[in-house]
Amino acid sequence: MNIIESLKTFPLLANIREDELKVFASKLKEEVFPTGTSILVEGDTGDTMYLLIDGEVDVIKTTVYGEKFTCAKLKSSYHVLFGEIALIDNDKRSASIIATTECKCLSIDGKTFKDFCREYPNAGVELLLLICTNTAKNMRAENANLRLVYQALIDEIDAK
Amino acid sequence: MNIIESLKTFPLLANIREDELKVFASKLKEEVFPTGTSILVEGDTGDTMYLLIDGEVDVIKTTVYGEKFTCAKLKSSYHVLFGEIALIDNDKRSASIIATTECKCLSIDGKTFKDFCREYPNAGVELLLLICTNTAKNMRAENANLRLVYQALIDEIDAK
Repeated sequence: MNIIESLKTFPLLANIREDELKVFASKLKEEVFPTGTSILVEGDTGDTMYLLIDGEVDVIKTTVYGEKFTCAKLKSSYHVLFGEIALIDNDKRSASIIATTECKCLSIDGKTFKDFCREYPNAGVELLLLICTNTAKNMRAENANLRLVYQALIDEIDAK
Repeated sequence: MNIIESLKTFPLLANIREDELKVFASKLKEEVFPTGTSILVEGDTGDTMYLLIDGEVDVIKTTVYGEKFTCAKLKSSYHVLFGEIALIDNDKRSASIIATTECKCLSIDGKTFKDFCREYPNAGVELLLLICTNTAKNMRAENANLRLVYQALIDEIDAK
């Protein structure tokens, strides 16, 4: 599958006009990560966003005690992206992303992405809606996690 | 301050062309909520997003045991918006928003918002970047909350 065909499998990106999608594809870097690679490292700086087009990854976070825990397992069939928070706010990576199989990604940095969105705003709106949809999903998952851990905390206190 | 002047105080929206900002302003509903009003209720359906232009609100969530806790206090001087997650994914409200002073908001529903973004994509890109920036900030706050509660849980277990 070429880059444009891969992009079209993402919801919303199929709405983008072919000529604009071609320009967007030309801004993307194709990267292959062997199994076990840290694609992103929590706490690092960097504003590159990745679209996962083949393979599987774990999303890993570190507790205040330095323990690592897996907070999500993602597959290319879910049409996910990661690194989009730092792409937007240029702050540190909020999680590590580990390739649990060989992974093929399409990557783009924050400046190139924002410049493209402003130069090709029709495509920009669809790309940003895709990011918003992805973030909304992550935000709801994070909410559910918080609720679970909070429940466990209350249970521990009650059990004393 | 009129609607357009209020909008221009939001970062990114000052980048929008005057004629497009006027059209966007015409899509917004000005709403005033007396102190104590629930502007949004956790678990409700509804895809209206609110830009807070005057006043202060509490963001309230409910634990699995039905206890309410304040997870953020927001002021109009922070140039915040809320309800943007449900605006994007049309799912249930993930938190309640309570007016702790009289609040003036500008509101817009999901369909009107997305239609506007696609019809006026230059403005759409800036609006969506504003939403992304807001969500990125909330996501990082939620991460920090999760880390704190997780730490408290580990401490409780260790103290046994």
